[in-house]
Amino acid sequence: MKDGIETRLYVRTPLSEADAVELDSAQAHYLRSVLRLGPGEGVALFNGRDGEWLARIEAIAKNRATLRVERRTREQRPEPDLWLAFAPIKRARIDFTAQKATELGASLLWPVMTRRTMVDRVNTDRLAANAVEAAEQSERLTVPEVREPVALDRLIEAWPSDRPMVLCDESGAGGSVPGIAEALAAAGPTIRERVGFVIGPEGGFAQEELDRLRSLPFVTAVGLGPRLLRADTAALAAIAVWQAVAGDWRTSTH
Amino acid sequence: MKDGIETRLYVRTPLSEADAVELDSAQAHYLRSVLRLGPGEGVALFNGRDGEWLARIEAIAKNRATLRVERRTREQRPEPDLWLAFAPIKRARIDFTAQKATELGASLLWPVMTRRTMVDRVNTDRLAANAVEAAEQSERLTVPEVREPVALDRLIEAWPSDRPMVLCDESGAGGSVPGIAEALAAAGPTIRERVGFVIGPEGGFAQEELDRLRSLPFVTAVGLGPRLLRADTAALAAIAVWQAVAGDWRTSTH
Repeated sequence: MKDGIETRLYVRTPLSEADAVELDSAQAHYLRSVLRLGPGEGVALFNGRDGEWLARIEAIAKNRATLRVERRTREQRPEPDLWLAFAPIKRARIDFTAQKATELGASLLWPVMTRRTMVDRVNTDRLAANAVEAAEQSERLTVPEVREPVALDRLIEAWPSDRPMVLCDESGAGGSVPGIAEALAAAGPTIRERVGFVIGPEGGFAQEELDRLRSLPFVTAVGLGPRLLRADTAALAAIAVWQAVAGDWRTSTH
Repeated sequence: MKDGIETRLYVRTPLSEADAVELDSAQAHYLRSVLRLGPGEGVALFNGRDGEWLARIEAIAKNRATLRVERRTREQRPEPDLWLAFAPIKRARIDFTAQKATELGASLLWPVMTRRTMVDRVNTDRLAANAVEAAEQSERLTVPEVREPVALDRLIEAWPSDRPMVLCDESGAGGSVPGIAEALAAAGPTIRERVGFVIGPEGGFAQEELDRLRSLPFVTAVGLGPRLLRADTAALAAIAVWQAVAGDWRTSTH
């Protein structure tokens, strides 16, 4: 956040100098009734494409607000191409997964229905709202795409064969598959350019699902140690490790 | 969980063959009224020292239960020596930090009060209860020690000089300090044997706190990438990365 502007909002409109931006009613309400901002006050805007811009409130009422874009404060930069496909879990923890995966830099969130998935409906609007809020707070310049849930078979069919799929073993069986840092280091260079993690439900994948996944040429199975991890923990741990060893947390050049 | 026994309980008493173990009233209530277990049914017990044991319910009433230890199902093994010192945060997220850090294998949880810490009281009994529950569910054989909160000055005084302290920069300033995976790889071998992560509050450490910490000979500063992470996210990410590159998630020998 530049210029002491602490409020960041994600908008869908293009952003360039002198543009007027109309906020939606929820955002207008947030600025006016929660933050108590008024005309002349600054807000940072981003849309996932045009960088971050300083804008000022021109007019604000109960359910609407108009902002005027002043100048660009940050350039758009490339971000990691990191997908997370995960079996949905119960409400508080799925919110949490969306928030944390966004903070950690995931570019796509994709619920996948597996044999042992216990949740039969996913509120993707809610997932997307969690992702937007986390992007605003973490100073990201993008918001991850949220896809509609798919069955595991369909996920496999739709998966691009040039994107390494990393299948995470969170069962604590540790040792039966290579540890995640070692497996990422041993994988080819593509896994640093684009990757997708697949996380099973509580209780894990069924054996035939595992057999099917492991038979795919683009799948790498990795272990997450000797303790049983919850699905949300496994997702965040896998993303953090990838960012640290292959993604944009690295500061040296390789 | 061996022998299809799905219930694991942490107890403080020694465990050996044919011992009788009295549960506390909360555990007895959990077995009887929540799980609806009765005499003859099996429960896995661990105490952090003697491995995991199969025990059977001998007698159970409203607030008490007696179990008889049958046989050892897992040997005690060494676990990572990983401390987490963290500025306490609000209730739901401090619970979450204790649970996730336990799953990920932290051996000690230590709240530290810093200049910008907004929480003035920490319920360490509640932290410990969260750690016990996460240890039971993650099939750990130990429970992390939970220490009483200390001021940052006191933490520094009490810190053993032979334990590397890793100071995590979650500010998104990325690039001003080495990335965590690179910094851990460049540190001496001691950091694989024992380590302690220090995580600041929301809003970060004050500049003089950072200067003081960085001047200590046992401190390594590491970056967690270009996005601003919440304190709980930073803690879990740091532990996961350490486990993957230096801890017990590694499967190859180094």
